[in-house]
Amino acid sequence: MIIGAGFAGLETARRLASVPVRITLIDKNNHHLFQPLLYQVAIAGLLPSQIAQPIRTIFRKQKNLTFQMGEVSTINFDEKYVKLNGSVIAYDYLVLAVGGRTNFFGFDVIEKEGFQLKDLETAVKTRNHLLRMFEQASHEGDAEKRKSLLTFVIVGGGPTGVETAGALAELISHVMVKDYPRLNLNEARVVLLEAAAHLISSYPDELRQATSKLLKKKNVDVRLNTKLENYNGQEVTLLDGSKIETQTLIWTAGVKATEIVEGLNVEKASAGRVRILPTLQLPQHPETFVIGDAAFLEENGQALPMISTVAIQQGVFTAKNILRLMKGQSPASFHYKDPGLLATIGRNAAVARIFGISFSGFIAWVIWVFLHIYRIIGFRNRIIVLFNWAWDYVFYDNQVRLITKE
Amino acid sequence: MIIGAGFAGLETARRLASVPVRITLIDKNNHHLFQPLLYQVAIAGLLPSQIAQPIRTIFRKQKNLTFQMGEVSTINFDEKYVKLNGSVIAYDYLVLAVGGRTNFFGFDVIEKEGFQLKDLETAVKTRNHLLRMFEQASHEGDAEKRKSLLTFVIVGGGPTGVETAGALAELISHVMVKDYPRLNLNEARVVLLEAAAHLISSYPDELRQATSKLLKKKNVDVRLNTKLENYNGQEVTLLDGSKIETQTLIWTAGVKATEIVEGLNVEKASAGRVRILPTLQLPQHPETFVIGDAAFLEENGQALPMISTVAIQQGVFTAKNILRLMKGQSPASFHYKDPGLLATIGRNAAVARIFGISFSGFIAWVIWVFLHIYRIIGFRNRIIVLFNWAWDYVFYDNQVRLITKE
Repeated sequence: MIIGAGFAGLETARRLASVPVRITLIDKNNHHLFQPLLYQVAIAGLLPSQIAQPIRTIFRKQKNLTFQMGEVSTINFDEKYVKLNGSVIAYDYLVLAVGGRTNFFGFDVIEKEGFQLKDLETAVKTRNHLLRMFEQASHEGDAEKRKSLLTFVIVGGGPTGVETAGALAELISHVMVKDYPRLNLNEARVVLLEAAAHLISSYPDELRQATSKLLKKKNVDVRLNTKLENYNGQEVTLLDGSKIETQTLIWTAGVKATEIVEGLNVEKASAGRVRILPTLQLPQHPETFVIGDAAFLEENGQALPMISTVAIQQGVFTAKNILRLMKGQSPASFHYKDPGLLATIGRNAAVARIFGISFSGFIAWVIWVFLHIYRIIGFRNRIIVLFNWAWDYVFYDNQVRLITKE
Repeated sequence: MIIGAGFAGLETARRLASVPVRITLIDKNNHHLFQPLLYQVAIAGLLPSQIAQPIRTIFRKQKNLTFQMGEVSTINFDEKYVKLNGSVIAYDYLVLAVGGRTNFFGFDVIEKEGFQLKDLETAVKTRNHLLRMFEQASHEGDAEKRKSLLTFVIVGGGPTGVETAGALAELISHVMVKDYPRLNLNEARVVLLEAAAHLISSYPDELRQATSKLLKKKNVDVRLNTKLENYNGQEVTLLDGSKIETQTLIWTAGVKATEIVEGLNVEKASAGRVRILPTLQLPQHPETFVIGDAAFLEENGQALPMISTVAIQQGVFTAKNILRLMKGQSPASFHYKDPGLLATIGRNAAVARIFGISFSGFIAWVIWVFLHIYRIIGFRNRIIVLFNWAWDYVFYDNQVRLITKE
């Protein structure tokens, strides 16, 4: 039984395709989401369907897999069953790959008033809000109010925050200026707040520098060492007492364990992630694997990051360890192979580190485009996304900017 | 001032592009919708963004037009102003092109329990529901309940009902059978109910015959002379007392005037449509034009139908009449030129009547595809829709079947 059809769960299921097992894959959505591009949905750069693929379509040819859509309410490790949609399903091996959710670190008011990028729903909500701000600004006579409508604050200088800020700045300077010829978009501001002294702190220093430079070139107001004190939906208050008038705060500053993981009686680490053995097994429950964002594992004294490459490698590895257990062998220990780092900052600039070499600017962006398109699930989606990006690149146009009702 | 950016309003605005006027275009959505393909969104054949285009993008180059998103709360014909988003906007000429909404003919329970295809929101809601039925059926052990989940009732044998029934039958027989290999989809039924003795009653008889034949070939259970008595969300009761167990009723059986038109103190005809002069003007208010689905006009003793071709021709004509009025000339009378009829019944069959010649089957379908793609707004959308249809045609696959949260 695999719970969660994110990168980790999907990969485990695939790697068990030709093994004589019966797989039940469970997810609360009917689709797999290509989360690294979720911010593109929020800035109206891609459509939800271009980064999501129905799970049944993905596994059409895998005859040993059954998909069930629903939310697991109970997991009983001792008696080896889960409860789903009111029925009880027993398992021999369990792979818990339920991902994470946004960590607001107790800032309830931000959870209520701010926006986040966690799933299609929240990304579309963010998109609709962003587009509505421009509509409202277009018939707002009061200069102060207009400025507040056109100020966009992004909290968190990690890859998601950096990518969102860059893409949003570009949406304004290249697309919105055409859609709103009567609006003075020099009034618009994208502000990126980061509590630490650096952006993308896990990246090497030359890439951090390049990122800051690229963001500044795109007119993003980057504020390092800046901590948030409060936000009431109208006004951000910083720890130093200064204020930013804005209707939009996008929170990208943290991930924590999901509710189902929170309720489990197992040892947890920071952000509520489940402590696992190097074999990816749950201590005391060797038939249970916890992988991806839900799991906490240290390598060389450092916690593995909550990113897709870790999840995918753990998915592959879990399938291998399950095979070992089935054959009566002892499970092996997981080691993460860092494939490099990559972040994009708008339309034609990115930073990357691959095989120990750092790139920035246009070449890094081309690498980013091809790697991401290659990784998007579904050949048709790859073609359409590539077509859309080529079109946007040539015509400085963005994907359809629909305001939909939620 | 033009209220409504459907086919009629859009066309009026475009035809006034090179005239020395200032146009304010108002719509409650930020996008124009290509309504003839809305049913394709409901059956997961097309994406919302493929049949919708932001109004600001459409009019980017038209410098004499300002777009305002919002809902008009008051229209004062005597003092010539409207109220929008709390402000008052005066006009010299008013074009009222606000379209229609679903007419449930007082069946409140169907409005509550049934589904409709009126805008992106209702179409996406229908799609999510349809897809959810298959998910639920896939883990339903009770044969009776499963049958009820897989029974889909469409009410109304007009073009929308016929097209929806055909496309849904095909989604089941060609796509869902692959996504749900363990589900016996011979249990699935598409039932089309029509109160009159014919499907698409406005079409010539040979096309009606061809339509019935094509629908039967696709296993649609067509029931003519069949009137609805009640629906409680679980069970349809027909006038003859017989019942159909179903969780899904899609109502396509009528259109009536929108709320803003309902509130106007002007003479109304059937379905609450505004009676207008042959010049498309409102009696007593020569500076006001009412066009498209909102208007009622008879030609040769027959009311003009509520379809896009009438709306477009009236839009063009209104622009001309406004010019005449501006020059001090008297307005001309509108005459509808019937460009032919066209309806599609699934993947490779349609019926058409063009230049007095009736077609059916594959040739009609090819005509339908090209005409619709040609009419879709936005060159990019045309390419992508064409690509998607070619793909579906070759691979018997449908567009991404996402269940999204509303």
